[in-house]
Amino acid sequence: MQVAKVRGTVVSTHKLPGMTGVKLLWVQFVDEQGQLLPQYEVVADRIGAGIDEWILVSRRALAPDSDTDDRDLRPIDALAIGIIDTITLGNSLLYSKKDEYRY
Amino acid sequence: MQVAKVRGTVVSTHKLPGMTGVKLLWVQFVDEQGQLLPQYEVVADRIGAGIDEWILVSRRALAPDSDTDDRDLRPIDALAIGIIDTITLGNSLLYSKKDEYRY
Amino acid sequence: MQVAKVRGTVVSTHKLPGMTGVKLLWVQFVDEQGQLLPQYEVVADRIGAGIDEWILVSRRALAPDSDTDDRDLRPIDALAIGIIDTITLGNSLLYSKKDEYRY
Amino acid sequence: MQVAKVRGTVVSTHKLPGMTGVKLLWVQFVDEQGQLLPQYEVVADRIGAGIDEWILVSRRALAPDSDTDDRDLRPIDALAIGIIDTITLGNSLLYSKKDEYRY
Amino acid sequence: MQVAKVRGTVVSTHKLPGMTGVKLLWVQFVDEQGQLLPQYEVVADRIGAGIDEWILVSRRALAPDSDTDDRDLRPIDALAIGIIDTITLGNSLLYSKKDEYRY
Repeated sequence: MQVAKVRGTVVSTHKLPGMTGVKLLWVQFVDEQGQLLPQYEVVADRIGAGIDEWILVSRRALAPDSDTDDRDLRPIDALAIGIIDTITLGNSLLYSKKDEYRY
Repeated sequence: MQVAKVRGTVVSTHKLPGMTGVKLLWVQFVDEQGQLLPQYEVVADRIGAGIDEWILVSRRALAPDSDTDDRDLRPIDALAIGIIDTITLGNSLLYSKKDEYRY
Repeated sequence: MQVAKVRGTVVSTHKLPGMTGVKLLWVQFVDEQGQLLPQYEVVADRIGAGIDEWILVSRRALAPDSDTDDRDLRPIDALAIGIIDTITLGNSLLYSKKDEYRY
Repeated sequence: MQVAKVRGTVVSTHKLPGMTGVKLLWVQFVDEQGQLLPQYEVVADRIGAGIDEWILVSRRALAPDSDTDDRDLRPIDALAIGIIDTITLGNSLLYSKKDEYRY
Repeated sequence: MQVAKVRGTVVSTHKLPGMTGVKLLWVQFVDEQGQLLPQYEVVADRIGAGIDEWILVSRRALAPDSDTDDRDLRPIDALAIGIIDTITLGNSLLYSKKDEYRY
């Protein structure tokens, strides 16, 4: 997974049926020192991530919902899978949501 | 997903059986500031995207149609999954179809 | 998908059982202006593409043949899926097989 | 697979259900000479890798546990699959855990 | 698929159960002119490739063995799928195992 900062949202009304109800975030990746990179991804969000939060991005698909048919695979290739609390390298913090992010 | 602008079309008559009836678009990716990148992709289009529209591109496969066999997986690796209306970063618009695209 | 020009062939006699009978082409990708890039791929060919033809390359797997077991997934990660006739960008032709390719 | 050195840990409490109980490591890739690259990955760890150990990273998914439903595919796209003991190139060692890593 | 030269081996004793018995090779990719690139991959080998041989590398998974359960998908993302005999571009040989590789 890669780490990215939530920057904004993307709206699409004319889309594939499988995309209905999928919230789309525009996120920007950070490098190994926590600096923003000039690289974005549009990710599906099912965890309710907010602007400026740091998230984990997986490029795997959404698991089919347990109450839908196995063949209903949504055409998603990137997904917010967790909001990051801390990143610790050795004895130092690279990132802490408590310090850097305020509601 | 990545954001791309529709630039043209690709025609192939001699192709794998699974490609029959698949409309192919030549799209060019945009960077995190909305500028065109020198990178293209040929994507399958099932949403009817038009020239100059901005679309979301997923590199996942087409879901098998509900009325076809599960094993009929089309050999597609990139797909237009939605036409973009707006991209909003913080309080500003990076892109609005209303402003930038006219029929 | 990406566009590539067929440059040659690759022969491998000692290989995985799933590779038996798979014809392998050495293809070179073109950029968004139709120029050859210094990037190649070895692709499986089931459409009979010839030297100098432009093809569409998908990085998805071969669909299992309808007369084989579902579990017989060949270990292929790149595939020629169509021979390109034309690429049209706006009102101009980026490529036409008729003009640029002769048997 | 690629080779990476374990540098730290990532904590996320608000995440997708499928991520519960998954330990996340921040790892940094090494190049073909064993030097650290400025490229990281957050990987799921089920082998108990420790700080400074060298591991093999696969970008495939976690296999569904044999005691869970097939559809419970965790949304993981990178995984620690082995702790490296030695890397031998020709007659010389590129890396030996015995020499370079001490508990 | 990409072409790579076998350079060495990787040993890992502490690993995921699915990795047991998998031989791991350290291979280095070649470019479109046959020159070694500073890019390696650790690949699973089931074809018995030897040092200095040129192989085809696929980034697809190992097919489940026909005598194992479908769910036993090994966590492998790169695989040696064939030992290369010749690469022919137009009328010239880019590589011939007979000429360049001796036991």
